[in-house]
Amino acid sequence: MKYAPIRLKEKFLKFDDHWAPKIIASMNDYHFKAVKFQGEFVWHKHDTTDEVFFVLDGEMTIAFRDGSVTIVAGELFVVPKGVEHKPSADLECRAMLIEPAGTINTGNAGGEMTADDNVWI
Amino acid sequence: MKYAPIRLKEKFLKFDDHWAPKIIASMNDYHFKAVKFQGEFVWHKHDTTDEVFFVLDGEMTIAFRDGSVTIVAGELFVVPKGVEHKPSADLECRAMLIEPAGTINTGNAGGEMTADDNVWI
Repeated sequence: MKYAPIRLKEKFLKFDDHWAPKIIASMNDYHFKAVKFQGEFVWHKHDTTDEVFFVLDGEMTIAFRDGSVTIVAGELFVVPKGVEHKPSADLECRAMLIEPAGTINTGNAGGEMTADDNVWI
Repeated sequence: MKYAPIRLKEKFLKFDDHWAPKIIASMNDYHFKAVKFQGEFVWHKHDTTDEVFFVLDGEMTIAFRDGSVTIVAGELFVVPKGVEHKPSADLECRAMLIEPAGTINTGNAGGEMTADDNVWI
């Protein structure tokens, strides 16, 4: 089929790991990524870009140095560039990230939870 | 509340018109827009940008000169820049558009269905 939609539910069947975003679409120089969150991520920031979290299933919390936000299915949130944040989710949460191609999940922090930024599914 | 999520269902309660995207969030120089489709739009293209359609409720079809795609809730589709397309929806369809700020709904075509590109809700 020359023109086919991208079915998010099918994409989420293709991986099980947490905190490792997978690219499902590109728009100009941006990537749309499917990701599963569970547990605690690391404090980090992205100095050159905003980052959009769109929750599709479950809920997650993003902590900031001066507050936090809980995002549930059907809600989105824009983390402004340069703002330190720490995502977490008690139960598995499925989300879509929208951000420039090449954005590293751990931003400035690096470390063990850093994922490959160029895995397509 | 310093940090608040953007609740898509609430945004869709705030307008009734079709084919007139409303901005709900910005990320860098991109806009996320809520839009309701029903009926037929006009053939047009966007020469400088891709355009993402993410269907949240219902279904829509995008016709191309050499085919078409039907997109249902939970699916997204990227219309490549420069490609002529004509969206339509038999019944009301709710979607989110993601595209650069300032993108005009009718692209190169203009005409009566051209909407203000800077309406926030």
